[in-house]
Amino acid sequence: MRIFVCVSLTGAQRSRLEAALAADEVHYDPDAESAPHVFADFEVAFGNPPADWLLAGAALRWVQLESVGFGEYGELDWDELGKRLKISNLAGFFAEPVAESILAGVLSHFRGIGALAILQERREWVGEALRPSLKLLRDAHVVLFGAGAINGRVRELLQPFGCRIMRFGRGFEGEALEASLREADIVICTVPHTPDTKGLFDRRMIGLLKQGSLFVNFGRGSLIDEQVLAEALDSGRIGGAVIDVTQDEPLPPDHRFWTCKNMLLTQHTGGGTSDEVDRKIDLFIANLERYRRGDEPWNLVDFKRGY
Amino acid sequence: MRIFVCVSLTGAQRSRLEAALAADEVHYDPDAESAPHVFADFEVAFGNPPADWLLAGAALRWVQLESVGFGEYGELDWDELGKRLKISNLAGFFAEPVAESILAGVLSHFRGIGALAILQERREWVGEALRPSLKLLRDAHVVLFGAGAINGRVRELLQPFGCRIMRFGRGFEGEALEASLREADIVICTVPHTPDTKGLFDRRMIGLLKQGSLFVNFGRGSLIDEQVLAEALDSGRIGGAVIDVTQDEPLPPDHRFWTCKNMLLTQHTGGGTSDEVDRKIDLFIANLERYRRGDEPWNLVDFKRGY
Repeated sequence: MRIFVCVSLTGAQRSRLEAALAADEVHYDPDAESAPHVFADFEVAFGNPPADWLLAGAALRWVQLESVGFGEYGELDWDELGKRLKISNLAGFFAEPVAESILAGVLSHFRGIGALAILQERREWVGEALRPSLKLLRDAHVVLFGAGAINGRVRELLQPFGCRIMRFGRGFEGEALEASLREADIVICTVPHTPDTKGLFDRRMIGLLKQGSLFVNFGRGSLIDEQVLAEALDSGRIGGAVIDVTQDEPLPPDHRFWTCKNMLLTQHTGGGTSDEVDRKIDLFIANLERYRRGDEPWNLVDFKRGY
Repeated sequence: MRIFVCVSLTGAQRSRLEAALAADEVHYDPDAESAPHVFADFEVAFGNPPADWLLAGAALRWVQLESVGFGEYGELDWDELGKRLKISNLAGFFAEPVAESILAGVLSHFRGIGALAILQERREWVGEALRPSLKLLRDAHVVLFGAGAINGRVRELLQPFGCRIMRFGRGFEGEALEASLREADIVICTVPHTPDTKGLFDRRMIGLLKQGSLFVNFGRGSLIDEQVLAEALDSGRIGGAVIDVTQDEPLPPDHRFWTCKNMLLTQHTGGGTSDEVDRKIDLFIANLERYRRGDEPWNLVDFKRGY
């Protein structure tokens, strides 16, 4: 089988992958520098190739993405392309690391960890005077946006804190949702980018957030009106934000988020772990076996539903 | 009743306390600037007076400390002093905030939050390249030192992470303890200062810690050989530390801890919450009612046992 790999690998990872694919013809191009017509000749791809390459590849039948998100391919004509091509994403793959990063960010906000790290860098002891600024997560009212595996795990990790948790999966509107937003101490968003969720947290929705509340986004940057969120933070209307994803990444040097009050930027590291790439390789190898046997690969993306 | 208050209060807190003690003669001296013989004339004290004042005060019968620790009074002759004077501490009072700070510190270590906060201060985007340095708390082997309420709460908060937890309450020696230390990914110490625990983590004990492990101390600074811990961090033998308490506080500007590799200093903020002092006032008022009625006050310290 002809397999195109556009995932960045260490030497050891590449050897391991190629050993598992010893009977196949593997083309390794971590930075997607090949011409589209080179790509066009492969049956399977592992990684996230440029979107327009998918149109150039008549031989291409299945792509295993190395991400959960697939927004860059959403504009293609899937009514047509879907007749010959399937795409798998990494749904669920990042649930544990992202949920742990979310809890780390939330607890850091309540317990002042970011401020303490910066004080340490300056060799500045404040100690006692910081204590009245600290809060507890216990008994907080939490609203989760998103029906996926990440929020499922967040809910489990919050269990011992006795939080009151409301969860909204899709169709983000209505009285119940608005009432929950007004009462939430913490709003956690892990919603994917779809045509419906773009700009979900606009001026009106951000305006519903409770005074002093914490806003957390590990979904996609496109969900948020960043200017309005920045205003809500700097005016002190909301109490803080933990932001993993932004509309532009890397975040431009002059972006207002860098210096917003009570903002923690986690730089799209939420899904990271030391064994992340090895786990991706394992999953690709296992999913490729399904494809070879003619079974349906895991985690096929439905471009009509958008997840 | 004559009551001496040496707790630092806001105007509103002081008014609230004095309203509750309207029938009493209250002397407010937040910084303990009175002469010992002034103090000597009060029956009850709220706060942590200088240790030698307790000897000057023949009228003194009961002190409600505003701390869990009482090491500064441990050198007094309690065989004699204990005949006329009782001391209550705040055992259990800080369990929730300290346990939340411990989990915040541990998760911040695994998910890189301290480093991210410092990068943000510098407007520096690293993003992707940070991901391989991140780890998961899930399934970690954890050893808890200390039998108190804080570790009880830590154990509850760790429950959804599926950690393997070993807990040692006192008499910190023996084969089982040493074997546990050698296998622990995380060692969390919330042991009080007593004559037995002083220097507990000496060169030998720190030498038992597993390569790459995380050491967490929210007990007392006197438990740790700070020089040896600093060496273990900077050499990369252990993977990190979260340190709330140090032998000298504020930490001296030239102390090695400020710049140790993978060190997070939380500056003795672990017990802090925005309503901390109000909760202390409530507890003192309730415990004073017990004392007035002739009931035994809550949380009496046993100086012989040391907790």
